[in-house]
Amino acid sequence: VPRIHFQQQLAELKDKLLAMAALAQQALDCAVEAYLQQDAGLCQHVRDLEAAINTTERDVYQMAYDLLAKEQPMAVDLRFILAVIKINSDLERVGDQSVNIAQRAEGLMNLPGVKLPVDVKKMGEWAGRMVRTSIQALLDADVKLAESVLTMDDEMDAMNHTAQRALMQEMQARPEVSDQALNAIIIARNLERTADHATNIAEDVIFWVRGSDVRHQMSLAAD
Amino acid sequence: VPRIHFQQQLAELKDKLLAMAALAQQALDCAVEAYLQQDAGLCQHVRDLEAAINTTERDVYQMAYDLLAKEQPMAVDLRFILAVIKINSDLERVGDQSVNIAQRAEGLMNLPGVKLPVDVKKMGEWAGRMVRTSIQALLDADVKLAESVLTMDDEMDAMNHTAQRALMQEMQARPEVSDQALNAIIIARNLERTADHATNIAEDVIFWVRGSDVRHQMSLAAD
Repeated sequence: VPRIHFQQQLAELKDKLLAMAALAQQALDCAVEAYLQQDAGLCQHVRDLEAAINTTERDVYQMAYDLLAKEQPMAVDLRFILAVIKINSDLERVGDQSVNIAQRAEGLMNLPGVKLPVDVKKMGEWAGRMVRTSIQALLDADVKLAESVLTMDDEMDAMNHTAQRALMQEMQARPEVSDQALNAIIIARNLERTADHATNIAEDVIFWVRGSDVRHQMSLAAD
Repeated sequence: VPRIHFQQQLAELKDKLLAMAALAQQALDCAVEAYLQQDAGLCQHVRDLEAAINTTERDVYQMAYDLLAKEQPMAVDLRFILAVIKINSDLERVGDQSVNIAQRAEGLMNLPGVKLPVDVKKMGEWAGRMVRTSIQALLDADVKLAESVLTMDDEMDAMNHTAQRALMQEMQARPEVSDQALNAIIIARNLERTADHATNIAEDVIFWVRGSDVRHQMSLAAD
């Protein structure tokens, strides 16, 4: 019976982390949308989401902590709980990046709208897809899926690099839009950092699954 | 006797994390020096240090994991081990940032040297001081010292902001140095990110000490 109880608590921890991931993804989507639509209400919504993210982060940590303190999880379960603790931090930082984007979006609302050589919509969707994929890899314990996130990050870095170059050139060619271009440079960088957090999550998933695989094989060999 | 053994293992974990911190700080110092001196040998040294950092990261994680798996640490010890796991990740990322700086330093070696409006030496020392202070706060369980790192981070953000602005203006005013200025922009950003990792470490220290204080007071009250 205690083991069944423990598995139930692990499932609850997973659910709570999923809620955390949903909040982080929501914050990211709203922040990008706030920039694209110049919507002040959405900026405020991102701040509300971040408050919820911070509360949920503490809840997830406390649940993980209690599991470690009260049960004595071994091998694959212990590694999973440690991965959750790290992933929880990365999701919280996705929330921070989203707030940064929303702040920049607000800064842009007082400036004339201009067309800039950066596809924020595409970069935002890509970052969101990376976060979603890394969490799906966790849920499915799927190393291949997690590895695909690392490949996606190369693409994100390339998009960011291209945008940075183009926006710098734009600033040189049209000094009158340099404030808008600087905001866009920083937003592109925030999205690239968001993608880095997704990459961290994917790496934690790989380490968790591979580590437990190795241990599993070793214990089979020892039997 | 088992408790003494456990305390000894905890002390070993602390020592190993200190070694990890020393490697990360060394990598940071060498990377900044490589940029300032245009020294290709130092760039290679940063890469060697990063390899050692990656190995040590795995060692620290394994030691922490083994402690959790074999002993059943409670309250303050459990929180400490979880803080070590998170801090270990941040130190590894300080290593990553150092390699990024070294790569930029190498890129600059093929370009004419120019004077730029950014004090990389000062920013590098500041970031190094933040990392050192956050680790000292961990060793001394000193919340006030950890909080000073958060204040230092505001200063770092201000330095980075000023440098970004000045370097952007320089690029506009002198397009012929824009490659050098872009490299400097990215190095300043890498140093700011390094400072963010120090801030994360300080936050983990605060959470660890405050959390255990609360628990300690509660158990005193219950006695």
